Amino acid sequence: MNFPSKLVENAVNAFSKLPGVGKKTALRLVLFLLRQDEAVSEELAEAILKLRKEIRYCSICHNISDEEICSICSSTGRNRDLICVVQDSRDVLAIENTGQYNGLYHVLGGVIAPIEGIGPEDLNIETLLQRISEENPKELVFALSNTLEADTTAFYISKKLRDSEIRISAIARGIPIGGELEYADELTLSRSLSTRVPYNPS
Amino acid sequence: MNFPSKLVENAVNAFSKLPGVGKKTALRLVLFLLRQDEAVSEELAEAILKLRKEIRYCSICHNISDEEICSICSSTGRNRDLICVVQDSRDVLAIENTGQYNGLYHVLGGVIAPIEGIGPEDLNIETLLQRISEENPKELVFALSNTLEADTTAFYISKKLRDSEIRISAIARGIPIGGELEYADELTLSRSLSTRVPYNPS
Repeated sequence: MNFPSKLVENAVNAFSKLPGVGKKTALRLVLFLLRQDEAVSEELAEAILKLRKEIRYCSICHNISDEEICSICSSTGRNRDLICVVQDSRDVLAIENTGQYNGLYHVLGGVIAPIEGIGPEDLNIETLLQRISEENPKELVFALSNTLEADTTAFYISKKLRDSEIRISAIARGIPIGGELEYADELTLSRSLSTRVPYNPS
Repeated sequence: MNFPSKLVENAVNAFSKLPGVGKKTALRLVLFLLRQDEAVSEELAEAILKLRKEIRYCSICHNISDEEICSICSSTGRNRDLICVVQDSRDVLAIENTGQYNGLYHVLGGVIAPIEGIGPEDLNIETLLQRISEENPKELVFALSNTLEADTTAFYISKKLRDSEIRISAIARGIPIGGELEYADELTLSRSLSTRVPYNPS
């Protein structure tokens, strides 16, 4: 594409670095901003700058936070016996949005991936172990994705906790609610058969 | 959605003002920026600010430009007898990308839409008429969209040019190349029948 202006070209290139935004979408966003009041562009630019400059991570659970300690960790209404281990802040949001979980979180910041050069020391694992030994929660719930790397990470953490009294669990895998059996992949279906649960009509 | 941080919430709200970006997509973009180097965010914010502050419009054709006169209007290699009238800069880009047009442009900046309070005086029509009377191009091509408002605009301009010698044409409407007859809408099909062209195998 030949852009009529270097300014437009720069903005298109910057926008198209975002995930899911190609050159055409980027151009649409740029032309949209040009049609709007200058305030819209200023607000967006300022929000982006402030976001990256001022964002902090909770010193306890490593979730995104505006304060030294995040609102979940500092809340008095949460069950402090339960720690849910997740990969990143997006997972915290997803679980929070269910409204069904009342425990605390621990954000690993990724999973162990030797091929990409990510080892246990690059993740927030040490602080998790320390947190467990100091605060003695009753249960750790792994809410990680279903990949080899995530499994490795969960295995690594569970081995480190071998001598601890903490109960370790993982979120259930199976056929999604509303999902049809015939459309489920074989792995999910066979796993949901082998981990079947007692039938309990209430 | 409950965001863990005011900064994240502000950035999500700013991003979701863009067309085609909802809260979920906005959150994905925000978390992406947080994972990247600070330079990526700075570059994006700066490109947006500069874009809106420094952008200029060509004083002849009103296309987006970095200079007083855009590269198309100042080019010596274009056919100055042909002016293509379009709605906005995006249309110029689309036509330029075909590589088939070698004339000049005139960007109206919209179409006459009384319901939205847009009259002829809000568009770049006066400068078009002036340009025609001063430069005496041979042909004006309307490349507007196929709406009532666009038709009204073309009609308005053509009436203003009644006493001029300029030839007025419009881009052809019809079945798209590669399009199947059975999927074409009735209006397009009937229009393409009534405006049929001589069969000319070459």
